[in-house]
Amino acid sequence: MSSEPDLVYVALGGAGEIGMNMYLYGHGSGEDRRWIMVDCGVSFPDMETSPGVDLIMADPAFISERADRLDGIFITHAHEDHVGAIGHLWAELQAPIFAREFTAAFVRLKMAEAGYEDATVHVCPPHPRSVQAGPFRVSFVPVSHSIPDASALVIETSAGRVIHTGDFKIDRTPQVGDPFDEAMFWQLAQTRVDALICDSTNVFSTHPGRSEADLAEPIAELVKSAPGLVVATTFASNVARLRTLALAGQAAGRGIAVRGRAMRRMIGLAREHGLIDDFPQVLTDEELLDTPSEHLMVLASGSQGERRAAMSHIASGSNDRLRLGPGDVVLFSSKTIPGNEPAVARVQNRFAETGARVVDESDGLYHVSGHANRPDLKSLHYLLQPGLVVPMHGEQRHLQEHAALARESGFPALIAPNGTMVRIAGGPAEILGEVETGRLYLDGIMLVGALDGVVRERIRLAIRGLVAVSVVIDQNGDLAADPVAEVIGISTDLDDELTDLVAEIEDVAELAIERAERAQKRDDDEVRRVISAACSQLCNRLVGKKPVISVLVSRVEVE
Amino acid sequence: MSSEPDLVYVALGGAGEIGMNMYLYGHGSGEDRRWIMVDCGVSFPDMETSPGVDLIMADPAFISERADRLDGIFITHAHEDHVGAIGHLWAELQAPIFAREFTAAFVRLKMAEAGYEDATVHVCPPHPRSVQAGPFRVSFVPVSHSIPDASALVIETSAGRVIHTGDFKIDRTPQVGDPFDEAMFWQLAQTRVDALICDSTNVFSTHPGRSEADLAEPIAELVKSAPGLVVATTFASNVARLRTLALAGQAAGRGIAVRGRAMRRMIGLAREHGLIDDFPQVLTDEELLDTPSEHLMVLASGSQGERRAAMSHIASGSNDRLRLGPGDVVLFSSKTIPGNEPAVARVQNRFAETGARVVDESDGLYHVSGHANRPDLKSLHYLLQPGLVVPMHGEQRHLQEHAALARESGFPALIAPNGTMVRIAGGPAEILGEVETGRLYLDGIMLVGALDGVVRERIRLAIRGLVAVSVVIDQNGDLAADPVAEVIGISTDLDDELTDLVAEIEDVAELAIERAERAQKRDDDEVRRVISAACSQLCNRLVGKKPVISVLVSRVEVE
Repeated sequence: MSSEPDLVYVALGGAGEIGMNMYLYGHGSGEDRRWIMVDCGVSFPDMETSPGVDLIMADPAFISERADRLDGIFITHAHEDHVGAIGHLWAELQAPIFAREFTAAFVRLKMAEAGYEDATVHVCPPHPRSVQAGPFRVSFVPVSHSIPDASALVIETSAGRVIHTGDFKIDRTPQVGDPFDEAMFWQLAQTRVDALICDSTNVFSTHPGRSEADLAEPIAELVKSAPGLVVATTFASNVARLRTLALAGQAAGRGIAVRGRAMRRMIGLAREHGLIDDFPQVLTDEELLDTPSEHLMVLASGSQGERRAAMSHIASGSNDRLRLGPGDVVLFSSKTIPGNEPAVARVQNRFAETGARVVDESDGLYHVSGHANRPDLKSLHYLLQPGLVVPMHGEQRHLQEHAALARESGFPALIAPNGTMVRIAGGPAEILGEVETGRLYLDGIMLVGALDGVVRERIRLAIRGLVAVSVVIDQNGDLAADPVAEVIGISTDLDDELTDLVAEIEDVAELAIERAERAQKRDDDEVRRVISAACSQLCNRLVGKKPVISVLVSRVEVE
Repeated sequence: MSSEPDLVYVALGGAGEIGMNMYLYGHGSGEDRRWIMVDCGVSFPDMETSPGVDLIMADPAFISERADRLDGIFITHAHEDHVGAIGHLWAELQAPIFAREFTAAFVRLKMAEAGYEDATVHVCPPHPRSVQAGPFRVSFVPVSHSIPDASALVIETSAGRVIHTGDFKIDRTPQVGDPFDEAMFWQLAQTRVDALICDSTNVFSTHPGRSEADLAEPIAELVKSAPGLVVATTFASNVARLRTLALAGQAAGRGIAVRGRAMRRMIGLAREHGLIDDFPQVLTDEELLDTPSEHLMVLASGSQGERRAAMSHIASGSNDRLRLGPGDVVLFSSKTIPGNEPAVARVQNRFAETGARVVDESDGLYHVSGHANRPDLKSLHYLLQPGLVVPMHGEQRHLQEHAALARESGFPALIAPNGTMVRIAGGPAEILGEVETGRLYLDGIMLVGALDGVVRERIRLAIRGLVAVSVVIDQNGDLAADPVAEVIGISTDLDDELTDLVAEIEDVAELAIERAERAQKRDDDEVRRVISAACSQLCNRLVGKKPVISVLVSRVEVE
């Protein structure tokens, strides 16, 4: 193909779900395109769909196969759903990484954890300065979000110029990090914006977004009025919120303690980079022990009810010093991510059992979102007057609603779910085709395809339980020993007549072999099949379940 | 003890969670007490805590052991969380069942399903008529809720008189079933109410509850304005909502089709009992095929995103006639139960992908709750002027908030979580002690204790996967055959050098036996231990996981 070079966009992750953001921009034509990646994040597993999985990420196969044409990886901000996969996928990507200062520091930690201390991470100054990566000129435009140094990207090529928002909100007083700078965005729009690729997370929130600054007073009031201990939680990476909480504690004459590794690390990192110079000195463990409850405020990680996080531990009373009771206040200054409600309720109920007062965003203005709400998205559309709006970072419903919102204001919009290659500049905006996409699971130290079946097998084990049976067969096709069975995750004590499921299974396996044809008994697959069938039927009759059955066949020679 | 007879209350389920309601009232003193049970419900399992479980119910051990003193089981209404356990626990309870007409019909269905066609189910007329069960005189007071025939109970004994609300809301125009009758409740309060045992589900909802009647217009507008097909869902048992939806369809000139067994059954039952005489005739399957989309409205079960329900099937396009597209409208006239958000989002996104418009309660007044909100609870407290408020049906936080609400108005309140025996009349209101409680899982056809470990084993399988290894050892302690392994739910293709995990496990098992002491090899437990340890270490090194390991040891005699 000798067509003119254009600029294309492909989401590998993030357009069809919230989380695991991974976007590609390609410049050139046909197979000659050069690429950059924007963000490389994870999402988190759940027992329902991905038990035992450690992390979920987009399958980068499409770009891995073209890694020699990948000119850079741009990270918009240091949230796990934008950067958490970088260390795990680095081996197949191996392109220079670009990020602003705080984000770059976080990326370096991630890379070091994965054993890549020497990967190249370029620290990029903010817009109007820019960096060149292959045919792409990219500048980082500071935006407000729930973590410092968040950025939108201006991506320029000879084929056109687009803006990728990353996660953002319109907050003029974000307390930490850069305020949203309308003048800068207006300035950006003075040169044509061919396309706006835009965060869709909060498109269903109809009120204008609120500022971090709005929280200072309600939180300070709450902390001041608490008679006893105050324990507060938020996302560990929400540095501005940690500061808001800590300053409220300080104003109420309380010492600030921090529980939770991720939270400590984030506070340390933000302090190093001069982002929270007014953050109070944190109490040492000894000082914590010496501080009376009414002069103490504890910031703890685990706002999503994570079982191993500090909040869970405190709620369960496992820390003697932090045992709560009436007069104490527990503040969830956070949003509960859909699906985590039962886990959060479990922790909140634990706290409630102690007699402490549990407070969350339903009780007052104790949390603001980090994402642009519907009216804010509309404002950005108007501000930038893009030639095309491409909604990203959202489930299908969010993408559709966001596209409808753009069209209402007269901006063309295009929905491009994961794997859809779309021309966004250098020619008519249109879908050019589909590329291969999928999900990878980090499972222990293995990266496996979500559809490989390994996790599906585990779900079957969880639902059905397991029967393992071993049989030893001699050269005549006879059993050389009694079958041996084990049962895991199935009730074995049968009420009636005190029969035992394991013994019944062993008997039924023996009978199955005895009844099998000579030819069948010579064939391991046949042996497995007849024993499985017999055991399945037995279990269904005795306990009402058909378990997963593993039959192990050994062959011996006897006299 | 020869103390005066009193009236006590014990929650076995429902006070500490939402769901699995099971309450006891006892009259007498010490071990001479007679008992009645109020409600006998289930709650539903999830993959996180109870994979493979079919239903969860309160462990009735305390009352089963005293079944000869149980004078009756009173069912307040026909929701699964109030009646779903009755068939499963009947064998250990065996007391006469009392319910109002519609509820009794539903109970009979449940009992028949469990094989107890001949259990006694008394149909009780509403208050002021009453029934006598042992020393208890009980009357059913009609209340409004999201199912017909819901009732509060007035429970009278020589020791005092209490009111148990069941689930209720204050709805003067519930469309189907009895309106909330303030005059009747005021009348009830003219005789002293010693205690009010009261639904706490919605105590955190601060606005006064809305009526079913408020939905008619918004829903009718929505259905009328839809250019194409309308698919609507709600809880199958919400007969009033089904009627509201169907009448909206009818008013818009649409034929009404119903998909989903539970929904069909509920409509049939309500019609039989004369509760929805104006419900439009439902289309047959042939009529459905012949009705154009713009003249069709489908009511479908599966408002919680259940994978096997009609909504999921329609969303996945598996029904040719009901394939959706742009111009079609999908209405979720329901609340998403906490924890079900991801499942509901999955179905909604499927629908959104077709181009249909997906509408739920966030888009307008398309759903009202069946439970009394905070101001309504307060109204009931004032109306009944009880000597004591005992919050029930709620998590710990709900119970506490409800108790605080009662105290604010000057009514004494007592929090009695599951297992707490409380004197509520015939003496000072106080906690008398604790009784044994717990949860039972219906797992296939077995009822197992939640703490029995069976389900915990399955969770371990789901997280870790399984290795089964069999070894055959002869009388000399030598392997009589090569070890045989199978791996389920673990990645077996190791990238480096195409090694195979199963082969590695078999080798490591062989090595472990060869290296074991003679005495160890004679002991099956020791053989299992050394092989488990070796396999665990191997898997941790190769795939980063420590699986569940089942080692099966067979013994043979060789020459």
